[in-house]
Amino acid sequence: MSDWFSQFNGRSVLITGGLGFIGSNLAYRLVELGARVLLVDSLIPQYGGNLVNIAGIESRVRVNIADVRDEHGMRYLVRGQDYIFNLAGQVSHLDSMTDPYTDLEINARSQLSILEACRHGNPTAKIIFASTRQIYGKPEYLPVDERHPLQPVDVNGINKLAGEWYHIVYHNVYGLPTVSLRLTNTYGPRMRVKDARQTFLGWWIRQLLEGQTLQIYGDGRQLRDFNYVDDAVEALLLAAAQEAANGQIYNLGGDDPISLLELAQLLVALAGYGRYELIPFPPDRKRIDIGDYYGSYGKIAAELGWWPKTSLREGLTRTLAYFSEHLPHYI
Amino acid sequence: MSDWFSQFNGRSVLITGGLGFIGSNLAYRLVELGARVLLVDSLIPQYGGNLVNIAGIESRVRVNIADVRDEHGMRYLVRGQDYIFNLAGQVSHLDSMTDPYTDLEINARSQLSILEACRHGNPTAKIIFASTRQIYGKPEYLPVDERHPLQPVDVNGINKLAGEWYHIVYHNVYGLPTVSLRLTNTYGPRMRVKDARQTFLGWWIRQLLEGQTLQIYGDGRQLRDFNYVDDAVEALLLAAAQEAANGQIYNLGGDDPISLLELAQLLVALAGYGRYELIPFPPDRKRIDIGDYYGSYGKIAAELGWWPKTSLREGLTRTLAYFSEHLPHYI
Repeated sequence: MSDWFSQFNGRSVLITGGLGFIGSNLAYRLVELGARVLLVDSLIPQYGGNLVNIAGIESRVRVNIADVRDEHGMRYLVRGQDYIFNLAGQVSHLDSMTDPYTDLEINARSQLSILEACRHGNPTAKIIFASTRQIYGKPEYLPVDERHPLQPVDVNGINKLAGEWYHIVYHNVYGLPTVSLRLTNTYGPRMRVKDARQTFLGWWIRQLLEGQTLQIYGDGRQLRDFNYVDDAVEALLLAAAQEAANGQIYNLGGDDPISLLELAQLLVALAGYGRYELIPFPPDRKRIDIGDYYGSYGKIAAELGWWPKTSLREGLTRTLAYFSEHLPHYI
Repeated sequence: MSDWFSQFNGRSVLITGGLGFIGSNLAYRLVELGARVLLVDSLIPQYGGNLVNIAGIESRVRVNIADVRDEHGMRYLVRGQDYIFNLAGQVSHLDSMTDPYTDLEINARSQLSILEACRHGNPTAKIIFASTRQIYGKPEYLPVDERHPLQPVDVNGINKLAGEWYHIVYHNVYGLPTVSLRLTNTYGPRMRVKDARQTFLGWWIRQLLEGQTLQIYGDGRQLRDFNYVDDAVEALLLAAAQEAANGQIYNLGGDDPISLLELAQLLVALAGYGRYELIPFPPDRKRIDIGDYYGSYGKIAAELGWWPKTSLREGLTRTLAYFSEHLPHYI
């Protein structure tokens, strides 16, 4: 455990999206570290929140069902918090194109209102924003570092970009201690597997466990990098713990990018059963596809001492084990 | 006159922000070119709209008072238009920090709803978006080209960035013929001189004409580039007229960047009277100041054949002449 993490003991921590995939995994870790954890989640069915995600720590966290779009509620909830992990978001690329306004409200406007609430009511709270590699769009070079042009390919990417930059501007102008992490594909226990809204990998895991055929779009040669959720959680905590991170933007990233085809093969091999097939890209997916992507995590490694520690093989093994046991609660 | 411009004859053109500074100058030009011009403006007192701006062409344009935030109204108004010049915006940097939500509604959400209206009701209309050099933030190198990192320094810059990228994504995903021009400081007849909300230069012109002392923040050595409004209008028309512009982003820019101190000296020299003084930066200005800025217009020169034709001396002379005559209508 990093020496940095003793500071969370006894401190008040708010996690928006706290019943979701990354939020709940973060909550387990913070409970272990002795923090007083408040989880805020809207439990919108299409999103990642699920009360099952906090099984075992229900009595050690507080849960407040609220939507980050509820400006007045959020103004109250941020008060007295030492750390705010700002993870709530609309994550579906396709949903952002069919309903761009909801995406705007959640990913942009709500971020602004949380920051305004902190500026007026809690200007010393450290705010850690979960951004996404998606704001880079289709890579012009690989690995993608933080200086890569921002060329989002869908409305979700634009609104996440705005949400991230509100955090940076509120640091630069008002001195709020904020930091943004641009997450890549994150996977692990408690991820959404009901559909492909959060990530295709969740959907694949469900299909595999249910004996269905995994479908790979195109030729399956698109490269991706992955972070196991425990590694993403450690990055969030390291960014929260270190003042050097304030006002900064950091990529996460995984070692050894893998093609979707190889990923499907690895999943089948680890499960010991299953099959996959290549199918043509659906048109609505193709229009927002970004080709190969993998990121450089050199900046956060150098400045905050983070690097991914869980191999894809190990992480997928644990994920399959989790969902083998708990799948009924997630579908 | 560019050969490209004969295509506007008899065509339907909507200008949002059409009673404002650039919108009204564009309207004069389009009327000359034989277009059927519809001006949409909210006439919000703090913004640039002013009925005086269309003196002389009142009977040759249609005016519809409406706010771009009026989703239903805009859905109707975009129908049947061949060209939509999307110029309406909240432009004050300081206002965007004191009231970030209004800035978000106008500069981001309304852009999305105009694009949605076109996607559903008029997908072939050419849409020309007036973006701003402000989304670059503090330059890392000069002149700033379109590949410069986007690092806005205030909420206005973030929302304009989002508004611009909705246009690009709606081109890339849905094929709408959109283009974005990143304008630099634009000046000329009909600019807002009532206060410094649109640009400090308008404010200076008013102060000069009223016999007040021009105030320059800091040491006055900050460099800026300027475009005379006729040149900006020509860029908008060239981008509207050429299919090659679709999906593209172009900087405008001025030749011979000038320091604020030299600009004040030039204004005084051209007017034949007046004085200026250096004063310390007000704190709220300093926090969002960007130092030197001037842009490269190499891309639009090469691809669309645009370059600025009016010297600063000539443009300021015409601007002073205009406001010497019309100032009472603008204060």
